[in-house]
Amino acid sequence: MFTGNGAAVPTATMSFLEVAESSDFPIQNLPYGVFSTADNPNHRIGVAIGDQLLDLSVVKHLFTGPVLSSNQHVFTQPTLNSFMSLGRDAWREARAILQKLLSADEPALRDNKELRKKAFVSQDSATMHLPAEIGDYTDFYSSRQHATNVGVMFRGKDNALMPNWLHLPVGYHGRASSVIVSGTPVRRPMGQMKPDDTKPPVFGACKLLDFELEMGFFIGRGNKLGEPIPVSQAHEHIFGMVLMNDWSARDIQKWEYVPLGPFLGKSFGTTISPWVITMEALLPFVVANPVQDPKPLPYLCSDDPYTFDINLFVSIKGEEMAEKATICRSNFKNMYWTMKQQLAHHTVNGCNVRPGDLLASGTISGPSPESFGSMLELSWKGTKAIDLGSGHKRKFLQDGDEVILTGFCQGNGYRIGFGECAGKVLPAIQK
Amino acid sequence: MFTGNGAAVPTATMSFLEVAESSDFPIQNLPYGVFSTADNPNHRIGVAIGDQLLDLSVVKHLFTGPVLSSNQHVFTQPTLNSFMSLGRDAWREARAILQKLLSADEPALRDNKELRKKAFVSQDSATMHLPAEIGDYTDFYSSRQHATNVGVMFRGKDNALMPNWLHLPVGYHGRASSVIVSGTPVRRPMGQMKPDDTKPPVFGACKLLDFELEMGFFIGRGNKLGEPIPVSQAHEHIFGMVLMNDWSARDIQKWEYVPLGPFLGKSFGTTISPWVITMEALLPFVVANPVQDPKPLPYLCSDDPYTFDINLFVSIKGEEMAEKATICRSNFKNMYWTMKQQLAHHTVNGCNVRPGDLLASGTISGPSPESFGSMLELSWKGTKAIDLGSGHKRKFLQDGDEVILTGFCQGNGYRIGFGECAGKVLPAIQK
Repeated sequence: MFTGNGAAVPTATMSFLEVAESSDFPIQNLPYGVFSTADNPNHRIGVAIGDQLLDLSVVKHLFTGPVLSSNQHVFTQPTLNSFMSLGRDAWREARAILQKLLSADEPALRDNKELRKKAFVSQDSATMHLPAEIGDYTDFYSSRQHATNVGVMFRGKDNALMPNWLHLPVGYHGRASSVIVSGTPVRRPMGQMKPDDTKPPVFGACKLLDFELEMGFFIGRGNKLGEPIPVSQAHEHIFGMVLMNDWSARDIQKWEYVPLGPFLGKSFGTTISPWVITMEALLPFVVANPVQDPKPLPYLCSDDPYTFDINLFVSIKGEEMAEKATICRSNFKNMYWTMKQQLAHHTVNGCNVRPGDLLASGTISGPSPESFGSMLELSWKGTKAIDLGSGHKRKFLQDGDEVILTGFCQGNGYRIGFGECAGKVLPAIQK
Repeated sequence: MFTGNGAAVPTATMSFLEVAESSDFPIQNLPYGVFSTADNPNHRIGVAIGDQLLDLSVVKHLFTGPVLSSNQHVFTQPTLNSFMSLGRDAWREARAILQKLLSADEPALRDNKELRKKAFVSQDSATMHLPAEIGDYTDFYSSRQHATNVGVMFRGKDNALMPNWLHLPVGYHGRASSVIVSGTPVRRPMGQMKPDDTKPPVFGACKLLDFELEMGFFIGRGNKLGEPIPVSQAHEHIFGMVLMNDWSARDIQKWEYVPLGPFLGKSFGTTISPWVITMEALLPFVVANPVQDPKPLPYLCSDDPYTFDINLFVSIKGEEMAEKATICRSNFKNMYWTMKQQLAHHTVNGCNVRPGDLLASGTISGPSPESFGSMLELSWKGTKAIDLGSGHKRKFLQDGDEVILTGFCQGNGYRIGFGECAGKVLPAIQK
């Protein structure tokens, strides 16, 4: 299962649908999402393949394996939560059936013109929605470089990392209601801030609006309250991953966050990409975990590699710009704490997670300046402008700016891509 | 509507059901809850009256007013969310109908033996459940005395209150999945802590387990993402209140909470009382707001009194004790920030709240030592034992201890009570 770098594991299977080599969604990927169309506003589950999607509500009768034959109703739900709750055997069975159904050799769908017409929808003509009802959303802070950068800026080099940071994956509860799907615009927040330390706080529009390059993972099967998920079993509870932009109002956050943590500086919007890439599709791209020194306590120890080589990019397109400019190139392998460790830590006190819960990485910054995952870091607290080319510059986000996150694992002749996680900044409503 | 202290506003109405003067649930109260019975495991909505409850799924056809006649289906739902979402006109209409139906003068229900038999259930024979599906749960920190006590203990007298505390209602996102209903036992959490500052952190069972005396309020109608709820309209969005015990693992919390706030020190369980007391029932007990100096920014200013005179009590019953001992007597009027201010602040950045969202007060401590709302404060960080009578003492909670929160508003010859918010500590599972 954990067989090393994906570049060395080509999967020969081809689909009967044409899929460009640069496509995010070859037959090796098969991510799940929720969509609707102009002629059918019902939210339903689809699987991306090339520039098409397969409507699972239309082909649910083809899931005839031992687990899914009695659970075909999960493919007529308006969210993925029920499918997620079935567990890994169901996910593997669904993947095997989908890979067979879509393969060039398999006539069942390929040669059934009528079924094909009903079952495939062009992604261009689909509206994507949140893939799951998110009960709780948790955000970690697990890139050492990011935590160090922020620490150096606000506390100086000698106290950059907090004493607990190397011992546990620091995290906090985020706001679930304002998690939105890619494409939804984000309104610049109003709020209370204290730009001048010597004067009283003021109310106004956020002036230091930022993105954070993150990835999130969805819980599949949950646990009961009071029954921790051991790190050795954590993988069985992780359904798949999305890109995430944790929009941040730095000025609001700075004034509010002591001592209970970020609140309104984050809760105005958190954007995720619509397609959930399954762990089955990502496992070929697993790489060695980072060395953790000091060695974590036993409940956090796991020797299985669970770090993933996922190339990540952030682009900005201002309204005045002809083309988007890429300002950050990072990689998910820059994470210090693994998703297994995050989940084991999250539940070690008995806290229950539920199917569809979202857990996120925190800003993913790498060692080089161009890999820093936020404008706070890229502009080093606004002390230098970020070059967008053609004379365009930014320190923080302007109204009208669109922020686009993308990411992919590079296989041998194919990509496991994540699609886009995009959002445009709308001006504040000043009242 | 805001007519001052409830003690001066007797409501003469009596029910045809006998209700003891000391009952929490006279006809002036009429709180909503969700229950099931041994012979009908379906979760359904009830209204408490004396020691009975009225099953609204049985009498839904009697809600024939202008708003509810076309919305009777809300009373057959397994949670209150749909009813909450209808807004204040619906809530007022329901209350008027219920007060009439249950009054001594009204024959419709009183004289219909068959309907009475189906519609009333003894509270003793009902199992109570969470009243709503809680999308998000937010915890504030709005008692000045509590914030000061904690500040003095951990930072000294001169830096007790953080600079932001008097300018905004400090709060954070809590864990919604582990909010549980009164009566559910709470497992002592395992976790990482650092009891000795000079040594590495250790893993083990929490040794400093505590309660926090809080109250929570449920959102009725929500707001759209990006559209704040002004403080002047906040009351229209507040459905009602419950008692809440924000169980706290002080040793886990202390090590984890910098810089992102409390996480596993809280997320193992948060208990609420099952009956939601409506704002209509509480409004007669409104009292003047505390003087706020400095004056808050305009978005937080509201002159309407929205502070409530609610007597609050915490009792502990250890397994070795014959009777429970009351160790805290506080009052909800000790709050510095009002619920309206909390809601206006929460949404000022555009954050959306949804029907059934839970917002809580933070620990409610008053000025006198016996009004401190946590064992951390009552034992002053474990430096003195709390006397439970008959030689029993505690600094923090022991396994087997039951913590019971109660509360009521005292009217003229009646009480608006909250019932019980109780939970027993189970020993940790050491693995």
